[in-house]
Amino acid sequence: MNNSAIGVFDSGIGGLTCVEELINLLPNEDIVYLGDTARVPYGTRSRETIMSYARQDIEFLKQHNVKMILVACGTVSSVLSFMKEDPGISVSGVVQPAVKAACAATKNNRIGIIATSATVKSGVYGKVIRSINPEIKVVGKACPMFVPLVENGYTSPDCPPARYFAEEYLEIMKEEEVDTLILGCTHYPHLSELISQVMGDRVTLVSSGAELAKYALNTLTYSDSTADREESGNIELYCTDSEELFSENVEKFLGKNINAKISKCSLKL
Amino acid sequence: MNNSAIGVFDSGIGGLTCVEELINLLPNEDIVYLGDTARVPYGTRSRETIMSYARQDIEFLKQHNVKMILVACGTVSSVLSFMKEDPGISVSGVVQPAVKAACAATKNNRIGIIATSATVKSGVYGKVIRSINPEIKVVGKACPMFVPLVENGYTSPDCPPARYFAEEYLEIMKEEEVDTLILGCTHYPHLSELISQVMGDRVTLVSSGAELAKYALNTLTYSDSTADREESGNIELYCTDSEELFSENVEKFLGKNINAKISKCSLKL
Repeated sequence: MNNSAIGVFDSGIGGLTCVEELINLLPNEDIVYLGDTARVPYGTRSRETIMSYARQDIEFLKQHNVKMILVACGTVSSVLSFMKEDPGISVSGVVQPAVKAACAATKNNRIGIIATSATVKSGVYGKVIRSINPEIKVVGKACPMFVPLVENGYTSPDCPPARYFAEEYLEIMKEEEVDTLILGCTHYPHLSELISQVMGDRVTLVSSGAELAKYALNTLTYSDSTADREESGNIELYCTDSEELFSENVEKFLGKNINAKISKCSLKL
Repeated sequence: MNNSAIGVFDSGIGGLTCVEELINLLPNEDIVYLGDTARVPYGTRSRETIMSYARQDIEFLKQHNVKMILVACGTVSSVLSFMKEDPGISVSGVVQPAVKAACAATKNNRIGIIATSATVKSGVYGKVIRSINPEIKVVGKACPMFVPLVENGYTSPDCPPARYFAEEYLEIMKEEEVDTLILGCTHYPHLSELISQVMGDRVTLVSSGAELAKYALNTLTYSDSTADREESGNIELYCTDSEELFSENVEKFLGKNINAKISKCSLKL
């Protein structure tokens, strides 16, 4: 048993798709979330800059005595293996859980991965998938317009520009006949209805943020480190830009019924 | 005469539309440009965060002993009047030059301003325009998808999503029959062909970055502070993220023929 909070961070609000699933799966856990809204997005930046921001995010969560850190940011997750220093705490990204789910789901050994430019450039999904099964073909595609579409509310399958970009980005996935598609950026589940329509019903979509939450459930249960309380856990959400702007987005992503405390964090930017 | 460089900064690469015009108008001037590519965009952030970043940008340029600072960023320009401290150097934004040009151009006293959310929220264009002529009606509209479209190369008038967003954002401008439209974000001139098609030929587009360059020409000439040299000035471009990513974009924005030195700046983020 361990009543410390689970730490979660993302470049902004996309990681709330992981928090949502954590609340479902582990309702008694305290959660401390950091969204680096003053420097979002990470996905178009260089590896060096992403790692430098990630170190600060991890440091902030460590100061809250969390028991584990979940990197609910596809971009940071894809550079974690390049960060050689020991963070002194368990830090887990979305790549391994998403790959595990995708490898279990594929029947034709063709997996697609859509994500930010930085993630696709890192090639990490291909590497991890091939280490599990070298027979699997991996097709990666960067979708740089998806984050702005989600952040500005253009997510409906009936929205012409959203559909235009989805069709452009997913064409290669249809050509390559992938039967499983990893949503490697935690913003993308907000476009899953559209993506599903474009790809067709037979293609399994893997939400990397939700898979990370399942991983946390398994890990905490297996190591007997779940929280020892019967009431709902406390949700503390920190942002690096103004609470006001962040609150609007939290409602959009988590709904109005989440009882979360929102604060601006003291991270020195 | 003053051979110090002109300092220019922007959140990223949009401000290069001002640099391009500076090179045309003042070819003998040295230019030091800073693009804060590790923290772009500014236009969706809070005023407090924008001012904090702007202070660091100004400090960096002052260390290069520039003779004046041009804020080639619509968003920072819109919060300059809220920064009460004395920067110890001449700092000029795009608002005044753009307003001057727009007020001279309008015939029906109806001016539109399209810009980032932060700029439109600041209300600064309306305030400055009304201080010049209270009869002028000002219509503001935030266009949050324009920067991602430009940064990802979707600028052609034939590009369906670019046209979709332009028609959505500019509808109010047509309804209100503005005859002059200020492009209040320095990215937007890359969409001017499309914007012009949507608005019609009779509407004058005012590029805020280009107007700022004209302002620099006038100010330096009037105060006899132009550079005393016959050869072309040196162009030094600094970015806060990797030079490699920045160089690709510089070529896209300034063309391959600009002889500029590109470096990563030492700004502590």
